[in-house]
Amino acid sequence: MTTSEAESGAMRRALHLAATPGVPLGPNPRVGCVLLAADGTTVAEGFHRGAGSAHAEVDALASAGEAARGTTAVVTLEPCNHTGRTGPCSEALVAAGVRRVVFAQADPNPVARGGADRLREAGVEVVGGLLADEAGAVNRVWSFAMEHRRPFVTWKFATTLDGRSAAADGTSRWVSSRAARLDTHRLRGLCDTMLVGTNTVEVDDPELTVRDELDDPVPFQPLRAVMGLRELRSDRRVLNDRADTVRLRTREPREALEQLFAMDRQYVFLEGGPTLARAFLAAGLVDEVVAYVAPMLLGAGTSAVADLGITTIADARHLRVTDVHVLTGHDGEDTNVRLTMTPHPPTLSSRRH
Amino acid sequence: MTTSEAESGAMRRALHLAATPGVPLGPNPRVGCVLLAADGTTVAEGFHRGAGSAHAEVDALASAGEAARGTTAVVTLEPCNHTGRTGPCSEALVAAGVRRVVFAQADPNPVARGGADRLREAGVEVVGGLLADEAGAVNRVWSFAMEHRRPFVTWKFATTLDGRSAAADGTSRWVSSRAARLDTHRLRGLCDTMLVGTNTVEVDDPELTVRDELDDPVPFQPLRAVMGLRELRSDRRVLNDRADTVRLRTREPREALEQLFAMDRQYVFLEGGPTLARAFLAAGLVDEVVAYVAPMLLGAGTSAVADLGITTIADARHLRVTDVHVLTGHDGEDTNVRLTMTPHPPTLSSRRH
Ligand SMILES: NC(=O)c1ccc[n+]([C@@H]2O[C@H](COP(=O)([O-])OP(=O)(O)OC[C@H]3O[C@@H](n4cnc5c(N)ncnc54)[C@H](OP(=O)(O)O)[C@@H]3O)[C@@H](O)[C@H]2O)c1
Ligand SMILES: NC(=O)c1ccc[n+]([C@@H]2O[C@H](COP(=O)([O-])OP(=O)(O)OC[C@H]3O[C@@H](n4cnc5c(N)ncnc54)[C@H](OP(=O)(O)O)[C@@H]3O)[C@@H](O)[C@H]2O)c1
Repeated sequence: MTTSEAESGAMRRALHLAATPGVPLGPNPRVGCVLLAADGTTVAEGFHRGAGSAHAEVDALASAGEAARGTTAVVTLEPCNHTGRTGPCSEALVAAGVRRVVFAQADPNPVARGGADRLREAGVEVVGGLLADEAGAVNRVWSFAMEHRRPFVTWKFATTLDGRSAAADGTSRWVSSRAARLDTHRLRGLCDTMLVGTNTVEVDDPELTVRDELDDPVPFQPLRAVMGLRELRSDRRVLNDRADTVRLRTREPREALEQLFAMDRQYVFLEGGPTLARAFLAAGLVDEVVAYVAPMLLGAGTSAVADLGITTIADARHLRVTDVHVLTGHDGEDTNVRLTMTPHPPTLSSRRH
Repeated sequence: MTTSEAESGAMRRALHLAATPGVPLGPNPRVGCVLLAADGTTVAEGFHRGAGSAHAEVDALASAGEAARGTTAVVTLEPCNHTGRTGPCSEALVAAGVRRVVFAQADPNPVARGGADRLREAGVEVVGGLLADEAGAVNRVWSFAMEHRRPFVTWKFATTLDGRSAAADGTSRWVSSRAARLDTHRLRGLCDTMLVGTNTVEVDDPELTVRDELDDPVPFQPLRAVMGLRELRSDRRVLNDRADTVRLRTREPREALEQLFAMDRQYVFLEGGPTLARAFLAAGLVDEVVAYVAPMLLGAGTSAVADLGITTIADARHLRVTDVHVLTGHDGEDTNVRLTMTPHPPTLSSRRH
């Protein structure tokens, strides 16, 4: 079944609505919807504003009222078939008398899936796949998490050009430049969870909040998660009230990610230390690597990457570079190079993606 | 004293002539010259084609013949005052009756210096410094070598993202991608000398020639230099007849560079191993660093950079990034990232540069 010019245009508009800036991400996907009359003119628009608010289709139906009858709903994601905080969108579309549904991305969530079939059973014309890649890109991390039933994991580390994270005496000032630290806060702000091991908390006592250029905490803070079996001292800054904190009392990376997924977490920013990073790498549970490389030589000191048990080159872990960015400081001197990479070949667990 | 529009235009043309492609570099600077009549029209042009051939001024004077009398010579480098393989250009200009000389870069060579003064004594009008930076850039390495009385040194190394040059068992295949190896040959082709330590020759037995994409040697081969006290086995490939080879029987980096400078060498490409690199770093005799970073993790193995005796972060060697380039292989997978850097602050010996 084909789609019309008007429907393609409406889908582009729906994608634009889905990506409305300032929509709180929360655990839900971004979705946009446009209702078209038979002559191709727009009857109503809607988009999803985050968990607890109406889905995009219901938002559009509400603003259309009676005018929804006989329209074509153009929506960026397959309408859900799931009674969560809101009723299933498939039912709402049928009840409103929508004649035809054109959607982009098929629902990767096995719990909510089945909306297209439900609509067809009710006699609604359904076409899927229009601008599906563009729609997937709008919800890259959500799609990954729904499909794999676990959060997407970005592992970040800082290193000198010769692979050191600190000098022999433990000092490490300036291995991350100011520009790199600001950039790290920006990346933290894109995720919903920051994960560290108990030892980093005990040794470094980081606050693990997202702060702006003036070092003030931003309004929306990701969850702070500390993984490992031991108790933390109660004076640790990660336990302060500037953000929520959870303890993951396990040493199993997969188990930790399952616990986080059960808390609706989809995007984990793994900040270390080396022991935790090694465990995630060994388990094939790193989906993206962000390395800040300082143009600096130490020749000795702490290795930025822990022993991975690799003894011969054939077992090296290969990454594919997806982005290279030079972060220049105010004075043009305090430069770091950021490399963004994905495992290559993709880890077993993400190969289907 | 000021210069005219016509002289600026002529200088741009002279810079263009200086950079004529295919001019063999040899140990001489690239120079261009334009002779202008009093009305600003061009009487003749010339450029230097390499050691043994006429200097740019003499080349232009020869093609002008009698018409040179009363002209203004616009030349990219201060005319020399030195009787080398050819007579001093200052004398040639005076003899030809040139009225005025406008040059760009002052001669950094203390041996050839003094041309401007000699011309003034002979009653010729002289203006220096027009587009001097542009002219210096045409002969960056030559200028450095003349000023510092030693070759410019580029140190190249290859490393994994975590600072390893080989796995624990010594295997290192693919740490340099094919694209990085081709790029290394391109850089070798820009220098006039490739320098390695005796141990790299004994262990790796590299041929140290510049080869093209088909792995054939290019026509113009840099000098191969092997530094260290021990004898080399006579079957070493570096001793074959595909290029010239010299032994530098010293362990002193400065002494080695002095020997090379005495052989008219201006551009050393230091390819290792780590022992030699450390000695040059420690002596402050590395002027540029080229690192090929492979997006690969080993977690253990040989360090790409030898122990530099640095124990605390304040003593780290800082570099300034001048260029970042992603080298992608044919299949888009075999990627390396090339970082080009200069010491920062500049090494003591290059600070004047
Ligand atoms: N360069 C960087 O970017 C960076 C980033 C962060 C930290 N660091 C540095 O790293 C150092 C701390 O490193 P670290 O490796 O000791 O700390 P870590 O990875 O934060 O914590 C290690 C602890 O986590 C627990 N754990 C959780 N999962 C585990 C597993 N699968 N296997 C083993 N243990 C597990 C264990 O403690 P339990 O006994 O509690 O289970 C273990 O002792 C600090 O000095 C810090 O400065 C560097
Ligand atoms: N990753 C890379 O890019 C790269 C590049 C090249 C080589 N490599 C590897 O490096 C290994 C060889 O490393 P290496 O460090 O032993 O070799 P090297 O630096 O090539 O040679 C060291 C030898 O050079 C002589 N030498 C010259 N100047 C010296 C000085 N100032 N101080 C001390 N010795 C001096 C000494 O031998 P005498 O007794 O003869 O004086 C010394 O044993 C090989 O396995 C090779 O594969 C790696």
